[in-house]
Amino acid sequence: MSTEQTEQNAAGAVNEQELPSNWGRWGADDELGTLNLITDEVRARGVAEARTGRAVSLARPIRPASLFSGPFAPLDRDASPVQQVMQYTGGAPATADVMLVTNHHVLSTHIDALGHQVRDGRVYPGRPLAESVTPAGVRHGSTGAFASGIVTRGVLLDLAPEDPLPPGHGITAEDLEAAEARQGVRLESGDALVVRCGWAYAVDPARPMPGISLDAVWWMHRRGVSLYAGDLGDAQPPLDPAVPGPLHRVALPLLGMPLIDVAELTELAAVCAESGRYAFLLTVAPPRIHGLTGVPVNPLAIF
Amino acid sequence: MSTEQTEQNAAGAVNEQELPSNWGRWGADDELGTLNLITDEVRARGVAEARTGRAVSLARPIRPASLFSGPFAPLDRDASPVQQVMQYTGGAPATADVMLVTNHHVLSTHIDALGHQVRDGRVYPGRPLAESVTPAGVRHGSTGAFASGIVTRGVLLDLAPEDPLPPGHGITAEDLEAAEARQGVRLESGDALVVRCGWAYAVDPARPMPGISLDAVWWMHRRGVSLYAGDLGDAQPPLDPAVPGPLHRVALPLLGMPLIDVAELTELAAVCAESGRYAFLLTVAPPRIHGLTGVPVNPLAIF
Amino acid sequence: MSTEQTEQNAAGAVNEQELPSNWGRWGADDELGTLNLITDEVRARGVAEARTGRAVSLARPIRPASLFSGPFAPLDRDASPVQQVMQYTGGAPATADVMLVTNHHVLSTHIDALGHQVRDGRVYPGRPLAESVTPAGVRHGSTGAFASGIVTRGVLLDLAPEDPLPPGHGITAEDLEAAEARQGVRLESGDALVVRCGWAYAVDPARPMPGISLDAVWWMHRRGVSLYAGDLGDAQPPLDPAVPGPLHRVALPLLGMPLIDVAELTELAAVCAESGRYAFLLTVAPPRIHGLTGVPVNPLAIF
Amino acid sequence: MSTEQTEQNAAGAVNEQELPSNWGRWGADDELGTLNLITDEVRARGVAEARTGRAVSLARPIRPASLFSGPFAPLDRDASPVQQVMQYTGGAPATADVMLVTNHHVLSTHIDALGHQVRDGRVYPGRPLAESVTPAGVRHGSTGAFASGIVTRGVLLDLAPEDPLPPGHGITAEDLEAAEARQGVRLESGDALVVRCGWAYAVDPARPMPGISLDAVWWMHRRGVSLYAGDLGDAQPPLDPAVPGPLHRVALPLLGMPLIDVAELTELAAVCAESGRYAFLLTVAPPRIHGLTGVPVNPLAIF
Repeated sequence: MSTEQTEQNAAGAVNEQELPSNWGRWGADDELGTLNLITDEVRARGVAEARTGRAVSLARPIRPASLFSGPFAPLDRDASPVQQVMQYTGGAPATADVMLVTNHHVLSTHIDALGHQVRDGRVYPGRPLAESVTPAGVRHGSTGAFASGIVTRGVLLDLAPEDPLPPGHGITAEDLEAAEARQGVRLESGDALVVRCGWAYAVDPARPMPGISLDAVWWMHRRGVSLYAGDLGDAQPPLDPAVPGPLHRVALPLLGMPLIDVAELTELAAVCAESGRYAFLLTVAPPRIHGLTGVPVNPLAIF
Repeated sequence: MSTEQTEQNAAGAVNEQELPSNWGRWGADDELGTLNLITDEVRARGVAEARTGRAVSLARPIRPASLFSGPFAPLDRDASPVQQVMQYTGGAPATADVMLVTNHHVLSTHIDALGHQVRDGRVYPGRPLAESVTPAGVRHGSTGAFASGIVTRGVLLDLAPEDPLPPGHGITAEDLEAAEARQGVRLESGDALVVRCGWAYAVDPARPMPGISLDAVWWMHRRGVSLYAGDLGDAQPPLDPAVPGPLHRVALPLLGMPLIDVAELTELAAVCAESGRYAFLLTVAPPRIHGLTGVPVNPLAIF
Repeated sequence: MSTEQTEQNAAGAVNEQELPSNWGRWGADDELGTLNLITDEVRARGVAEARTGRAVSLARPIRPASLFSGPFAPLDRDASPVQQVMQYTGGAPATADVMLVTNHHVLSTHIDALGHQVRDGRVYPGRPLAESVTPAGVRHGSTGAFASGIVTRGVLLDLAPEDPLPPGHGITAEDLEAAEARQGVRLESGDALVVRCGWAYAVDPARPMPGISLDAVWWMHRRGVSLYAGDLGDAQPPLDPAVPGPLHRVALPLLGMPLIDVAELTELAAVCAESGRYAFLLTVAPPRIHGLTGVPVNPLAIF
Repeated sequence: MSTEQTEQNAAGAVNEQELPSNWGRWGADDELGTLNLITDEVRARGVAEARTGRAVSLARPIRPASLFSGPFAPLDRDASPVQQVMQYTGGAPATADVMLVTNHHVLSTHIDALGHQVRDGRVYPGRPLAESVTPAGVRHGSTGAFASGIVTRGVLLDLAPEDPLPPGHGITAEDLEAAEARQGVRLESGDALVVRCGWAYAVDPARPMPGISLDAVWWMHRRGVSLYAGDLGDAQPPLDPAVPGPLHRVALPLLGMPLIDVAELTELAAVCAESGRYAFLLTVAPPRIHGLTGVPVNPLAIF
């Protein structure tokens, strides 16, 4: 299989035929993508994993900066995905606030909607960008697809049980299957794949971030992954300049696979290792806001 | 019991001794309030309710207005809790946006943090307002208490199985127990209480909104409700001017009970009626943002 | 001259050769456009008009809406160019606020920077859009051109001394010259042209807004107008579909003429009529913010 | 005179009787404060200073940061008073943006409205804070007072013609009169006072910022200063802890004197020195937005 995705045409560009794709699989108007794989059977398998009700958050904590800057801003503004302002209420018995949120932010655990990525001027499953993404918001492939939440079985594949992945490592199908074997778990069609690299997201030229290879995306396609969540996702810099961003530029726009970026998996890995259980009920329920390209989310692994 | 809360002193103010309170029950620094009632046993009871994995959202859909106004705003700005702007990315293959959120909004299903309400200059469990709520955000009793999500058993008490509650109706302990009997379910300590009145939130002097009476709050206290969610909450105008807002001004600040305001319960009621099951696994996982007085949330009832 | 601009090619599109243009006139990197016409002599002529120091604002008053919406927003959000929030300062002896401004808004008197309009993928004087306007703001042709303010002689031509202009009227060179004759004033090269139509900006299909014709733009070009300010600008709907928006799509991008949209001229017209003086010192000093496509401004006519 | 303001009562607090005040001088509802001193005669004196029309901006340039943060923010967010976002317009021939402005910011030249400072729970001229400043904005003493602009004679007193003022220096009446004598100019009643210390605003414990003493505020009161603009204002830390902030806590709330904070005076000083003229026409015309506590402004000195 690996020959398929590494063979490229003479111009150095990968042949589009050789990329996995779900365009057309669930119709021309589909907005769910690989979430279609979460059948009744999958959901039942998911809730069967929940026994004690212990919940672990897969989200990084966010501490808001001030919406204000300057001398009346109580904190120095740092790089936070959220800016908050407490409202002056003139003596009312309640406090209130407003917040400004950068929906895609490397310090925020967020879910990418299918309209977030554009491929040849189109969004999944082949709709023209101009009619899908408008100045007024996303009309097709928005966060509206997550309105009722995502409930499925989640499987953690911990690629860094001892040490973090080496810098620049390209995660392959082999890596994922080795983790399955090591952990004694198997990802089934419709499950959410949670991948731990043991890294915190940080762009550092001296220490290239490892990430998912196209080979691993093919594996996800074959296995039927419904949703990806990782402490890392695409390598930076790209593993293969001819196919940069296998997750964001292939899995999301061609497979229609929603991505949970910048998950926090330290606690999850510890709980899994301690209990010896790497499968759990996964719930993903972002605020029910339509029309966005992405939104912060707090996924829960429930054991 | 009803005599307790209607007896008032000569000045017309209720005697604070007669209000239910958890101040001190879990220590002077507690930030969980009634969420402390969600024990391991409660959690296990919660997940035991999840069998098929069918999930129902308890949140109203939000369609953002534009952050822009005027001729370049694609939509007339209407009353939306969220304003969105699509970012001009100069041709990049990704779309992105930012949003401005009014955290407490009657068209948004949101959770009130314990620092949202002030009682005699203090927030739960008796901390001075000035040290708990600062210009930089909430320091004590913020949304940080919900960082790891809330997982418990939820019980819907549908007070409007046929018709909406009558205007101005004050919901009593008797109403809640009648629903339990009618539905064949019993709310246990640590469960979340979901109350359906059959109303959409709307302030209309000609049609006063029904709401929770102090009698019902006492009942919640005795029963050990961990969390309240309702399509309505406090009546408007107040049922009893001497104790306005039994939920927001008593249950939240004195009991330390988080409130989910403006839940959307139509689908939930239909699913419960159809299946004859009024208990479910309830997950509440707002974005993991600390320091807020409240935040939009998408609670899921999982059957 | 009028034949020039009405002749069109067979395809119904105007021949670009026939549109007035200053591209190249002041170099390929010019950011001032027609403000180059404000020479030392013009400035001296301008200040010579200021004798008593009486100042009249040409700006509409703006009353901010709240940055908040919902129950904690003190006012219903209406269509305001500015949203304000008062900061909670926790008892400090000062009050402070932050504001969110829609820079182009029909209820806000604002100045359009040269980068605001794109002509064939280029901004004045022929620079590619992609290098001039970036996600980080405007790099060429921004409000930075107004950093030191604009000081020149202003001339009001009141086209509506008795009644408002008729609906749909296309303002011609003849109209402008008739006003000059009636008022006994002559617009000289480098002067700012202030045009009063006697209308408040309002889009109403039943009552089409009058506006500047291409003929009048040619006149401004010949006369050397440095800056346009009007209670109205371009007609809506367009006077000539082949050349829609003579001010915004021709004068601004091709002549490099900054436009002050939605000026408030009632008081100015009254003062001019009363004194018989239609020329004055005009100062335009928007906040010194670089990188914007436009910004609210308070032009002053000083007599 | 200096004895007056240094004498304090036993408790260490200055006697309010000994502070200059205009409360009541122009009535209980006055919103102009010392701008009342700008009479017709003053205005005429102001415009008489404008001869060539050369204009110098007294504002610092502001380069906006992005409203976005994170990977889609083109620039690292730094400490800017303004955050901008370019709007995605989906191919429209115009570009547009929105901006979020912190109205009081030490990197922004802005004007303080009279409602910005509170003295004993009151704002100038003695109105209760609660009725003047509301959650919906400032009702009394807002930027609305500057709606029609400020036009007067400005006088630069350059206290740092050679070297910057020494750290921690308290500017006295004597300093100001020495500058008048050195420059051959005299500030008259109604003039705007522009003070140059030769400093850029920066809080540095090792290098305390010089600033205006109460003695100098008394001098301004006697002389009839209508408006203060300075590269610095109040010293930090305070010169006299018993009367901290003579400008912001005395001149603004008690005299009703608007303050232009953080002016940029380098170019102005050079032009004055070169021409030997230290008086000019000063125009101050912030955007005509009511209800704010302050707003960025671009004051122009016109020679």
